[in-house]
Amino acid sequence: MTSYYNNFESIGREAMEALNSMLDREARFEVTGMGADGTATKVPDKICEDIIINRVRDQDLPFNIVSEEAGIVQRGYREYIMTDPLDGTYNALNGIPFYSISIATMGQDFTTLDTGFIMNLSNGDIYYSEKGKGVKKNGKPRFPARTGSHIINIGSDPDPFTAQILKMGGRRRILGCASLEMALVATGSADLVSYMSPESKIRNIDIAAGTAMIREAGGEVLDSGHKVMNMGLDVTLRDKFYAACDRKLLEDLR
Amino acid sequence: MTSYYNNFESIGREAMEALNSMLDREARFEVTGMGADGTATKVPDKICEDIIINRVRDQDLPFNIVSEEAGIVQRGYREYIMTDPLDGTYNALNGIPFYSISIATMGQDFTTLDTGFIMNLSNGDIYYSEKGKGVKKNGKPRFPARTGSHIINIGSDPDPFTAQILKMGGRRRILGCASLEMALVATGSADLVSYMSPESKIRNIDIAAGTAMIREAGGEVLDSGHKVMNMGLDVTLRDKFYAACDRKLLEDLR
Repeated sequence: MTSYYNNFESIGREAMEALNSMLDREARFEVTGMGADGTATKVPDKICEDIIINRVRDQDLPFNIVSEEAGIVQRGYREYIMTDPLDGTYNALNGIPFYSISIATMGQDFTTLDTGFIMNLSNGDIYYSEKGKGVKKNGKPRFPARTGSHIINIGSDPDPFTAQILKMGGRRRILGCASLEMALVATGSADLVSYMSPESKIRNIDIAAGTAMIREAGGEVLDSGHKVMNMGLDVTLRDKFYAACDRKLLEDLR
Repeated sequence: MTSYYNNFESIGREAMEALNSMLDREARFEVTGMGADGTATKVPDKICEDIIINRVRDQDLPFNIVSEEAGIVQRGYREYIMTDPLDGTYNALNGIPFYSISIATMGQDFTTLDTGFIMNLSNGDIYYSEKGKGVKKNGKPRFPARTGSHIINIGSDPDPFTAQILKMGGRRRILGCASLEMALVATGSADLVSYMSPESKIRNIDIAAGTAMIREAGGEVLDSGHKVMNMGLDVTLRDKFYAACDRKLLEDLR
């Protein structure tokens, strides 16, 4: 299997530079409240998406593309790049330093995930996995760990599943960027990530790269029905999920 | 009033470099579970504290020092630097990219706070306030905003105050670094930060710089008794707190 790490890294660095210079320039939008819910919110996502699509075309990488705005871009290949060009848009627009670009390579669905690339666009950290080759953070092998901390997406009133996680003790985090949160679980920063609250609406592009990475770390991603997560190419579908690398923990929650 | 921005910035950059090279080198500690609760946890805090104390001495800045490990270091001045050399140690040690160095200047207690300096040691962002001169992020003026998002420290079972915040809707975040969370509120990234759960145990060094910054942004920090926060030089005391820049929001919660 060819590695596209260098291609994805250069795409990520270009997106990080373009995005942060835009956020810096237009910081006034945050202050006035403009931009967060209007058309301006789309600008940073579009900037990152254009970079991905253009670079995949320029370098003629052998993939079709599934992305947030563009949907499915057929380029005559069998394999797909499934990408969220900017995950954690709310964080990015509001100055919360936790947002990412995520890129997965796969066939028609999550049973054929190959590569997971997730880059923290606030500090430049890169999380990367290839099937059978382990998970790396900034080029170094990383492994899951039991930390006692759990990442949760919590609603107005914790639902029974989320309440169960709160009662497990340890540290809790709500970080607001599913792909990067999954990368943290795959690399030993937290035990679990859960988007099971009634308000959670997760798309294939949000979790494709994270799913590749969690599985490569020996873990699994389960859906709202507690079954092994599988999603296809349709970006309009939504689901809930939770993921961990420790199978016993998943069994306990199931 | 003399500005010590340049001094604090160079201290922050030195701490960031030393800390991240150590975390990078000893990443294995995270994986094996060593370091998170044992003596090794103290190492990064101590590295950052040594940098502050040594630089304040080298440059003979006109302050005594109150810090985490060292306690009160009398240097024969009236004013104090109150510092948490590494806030969010848990995040730093576990690869969660949200931890800071925070430095306040003040007299004997929080009624005489002058300067707030908070630097995100994961991405290098600097939040800074001087009394009467506003709040800046990376050198640019920033203002609070109503974003509809709330930063909470949540317990195993949300207490009534925390449950009230959850029911307010909007986005919730748990980021695990009080000083940096206060900086986000002062610069328009979130409406509120609350450490009012029964598990919250906040020290003067954790919130001195953030309190200076929130007040400079027009807001206030309230204690567990819903009174204006005041803390002195004793690093052994603990309290809970919540803080916002919108006075109406504080009144509603009070």
